[in-house]
Amino acid sequence: MTAAAADPAPYYRAHVFACTNARPEGHPRGSCARRGSEKLRNYMKARAKELKIEGVRINNAGCLDRCELGPVMVVYPEGIWYAVRTFADVDEILQTHLIDGGRVERLMLRPEETEREQIAGRVGEAAE
Amino acid sequence: MTAAAADPAPYYRAHVFACTNARPEGHPRGSCARRGSEKLRNYMKARAKELKIEGVRINNAGCLDRCELGPVMVVYPEGIWYAVRTFADVDEILQTHLIDGGRVERLMLRPEETEREQIAGRVGEAAE
Repeated sequence: MTAAAADPAPYYRAHVFACTNARPEGHPRGSCARRGSEKLRNYMKARAKELKIEGVRINNAGCLDRCELGPVMVVYPEGIWYAVRTFADVDEILQTHLIDGGRVERLMLRPEETEREQIAGRVGEAAE
Repeated sequence: MTAAAADPAPYYRAHVFACTNARPEGHPRGSCARRGSEKLRNYMKARAKELKIEGVRINNAGCLDRCELGPVMVVYPEGIWYAVRTFADVDEILQTHLIDGGRVERLMLRPEETEREQIAGRVGEAAE
């Protein structure tokens, strides 16, 4: 769906939604919350504030339905999805994407990716 | 922030986030949850499924910080914000925006709007 010419200006320059959905232990899809998404989102929100990045908002969200790849975040209006494992990943997204307007290629999800194994080589596993 | 040429195709054609944040009774800003946002979001999700609208997702989200205008929803990647009061409002957004690709002008929020009074004439109050 494309923007109409008369649409109002964006309310946020960048609007980040971090999945913080939790599923019970042992669920076959896993869940972002069980992989530490809330801690990552809280860190991102706090760091964005400390860095005084203007025009951005870092929200939690319900299940984004890419659980197998989680913790996942999506940045709108660009619609760029990231698999985020560590605070260092968050720092890189803040600097490279939200401040510099670029992309963190190694953490980006492609539409066709549905399995954790497809991104494991790029993304690595959480350190903390 | 604009899309880069090499960005992946969107994962969802339209991604709706409905604020379902709750604040205690009597909070000066009010909250979307206290004005029935969860019921509206659940209805929207169920109706989108019944209508078999493809490529859309209807998520709940934490505080979108436009509490005074709530219940609010935002549709990305367009970044169109709506004040939603009734199931009929939801039906209209589903049909006019998500199916037909248009805009429900009477429910749209503009970036400069911050007070409930500014939209009251257009939006009306919830019937249920």
